[in-house]
Amino acid sequence: MPPLRAIVFDAYGTLFDVHSVIALCEQLWPGKGAALSALWRSKQLEYTWQRSLMRRYEDFARVTEASLRYACQALGLRVDEEHRRSLMGAYLRLTPFPEVRDALTTLRASKLKLAILSNGSPAMLRPLVANAGMGGQIRTIISVDARKIYKPAPAVYRLAVERLRAPKAATGFVSSNCWDVCGAKSFGFRSFWINRTGAPVDQLGATPDHVIRSLAELPALILRRLS
Amino acid sequence: MPPLRAIVFDAYGTLFDVHSVIALCEQLWPGKGAALSALWRSKQLEYTWQRSLMRRYEDFARVTEASLRYACQALGLRVDEEHRRSLMGAYLRLTPFPEVRDALTTLRASKLKLAILSNGSPAMLRPLVANAGMGGQIRTIISVDARKIYKPAPAVYRLAVERLRAPKAATGFVSSNCWDVCGAKSFGFRSFWINRTGAPVDQLGATPDHVIRSLAELPALILRRLS
Repeated sequence: MPPLRAIVFDAYGTLFDVHSVIALCEQLWPGKGAALSALWRSKQLEYTWQRSLMRRYEDFARVTEASLRYACQALGLRVDEEHRRSLMGAYLRLTPFPEVRDALTTLRASKLKLAILSNGSPAMLRPLVANAGMGGQIRTIISVDARKIYKPAPAVYRLAVERLRAPKAATGFVSSNCWDVCGAKSFGFRSFWINRTGAPVDQLGATPDHVIRSLAELPALILRRLS
Repeated sequence: MPPLRAIVFDAYGTLFDVHSVIALCEQLWPGKGAALSALWRSKQLEYTWQRSLMRRYEDFARVTEASLRYACQALGLRVDEEHRRSLMGAYLRLTPFPEVRDALTTLRASKLKLAILSNGSPAMLRPLVANAGMGGQIRTIISVDARKIYKPAPAVYRLAVERLRAPKAATGFVSSNCWDVCGAKSFGFRSFWINRTGAPVDQLGATPDHVIRSLAELPALILRRLS
């Protein structure tokens, strides 16, 4: 196998911890935060897949708002413009997981090209990276919005090949979502699953090349292969 | 609007009650049946969407088995060949909801073409309809398998137009899955959502034309429009 030349990261749940959004749900609707967050997240993903198949793409900010409306209705919670604005605002100020900065610094020092490839719209991703002070570490931010279809469609992963100009087989893809890793593997990337929760591997006919518990394990794993 | 000439039904959860599969889960893994059924079903659907987007279609029997394996692993339940065979067998002998036969009889008497359009593979659908003794009521059974992609892709709904030779606008589509109804509506069918549980409508940019509580309400609603 050729050595890796580029590493592409998913954003939400992989580099950035969505815990603060969950905490805000609990603050706004005490006792209902966990149920709301779980339903919101699962509908958010369902809508990305369903809209992609229906060919009715709408950007991730709007899908995220639509799934919030659904989840609040299903749980009988009143959501007003102010709730909506605070929750969407929290998405722009997520904290990176604690090990992220050191891992990226080590990878960058090895001349690997680093990028984010996310379902998020450009208007969500740019402030997210800037607010986290990570603009110097990851300069290439790629949104599915350029193709108007969501992960795990091959057209999305192809965007990273076009932007980074590295061959598939020399590109590593890193996500905490197993189905995203399977999609990247199926496309032809070398795939790394950050399995923080000890979940089973998804049964999608393409399995992750590597399974690790946190991003802290990534530099050693990749740099060993490079040397 | 033109009068309806054909009515197309989803199968699982719409005409056929999947309760017996849920009951069998509880019998095989006492105390865990509800959790297993819920996770199995949600993974089953996720895999149909993800595989469709990945362009790695596999038929519904295999997707259903794969999602069962995932759900059992996630819940720490041992699943052997015998469990697998009983559960897949139960899928072939589902009971129609109590109002289904009368509703179909009334609709057939009005010369409407009736069909099933399902994610199920032909090998799952044919015995299901035969075992329920419904072969005389619905003679056209259409599986997504002919297009190797799952609902809600437009190519699936187009299959019904091709097979029934009725224009989109003269075809009614009936499902208990709101996203399926939205997909059919987005394609151009007249859409009927059987909302048995009082769920909110999905926010997918295409909304059902009609919302009813059970199939018993369907003949009056349709025949009123025909007359």
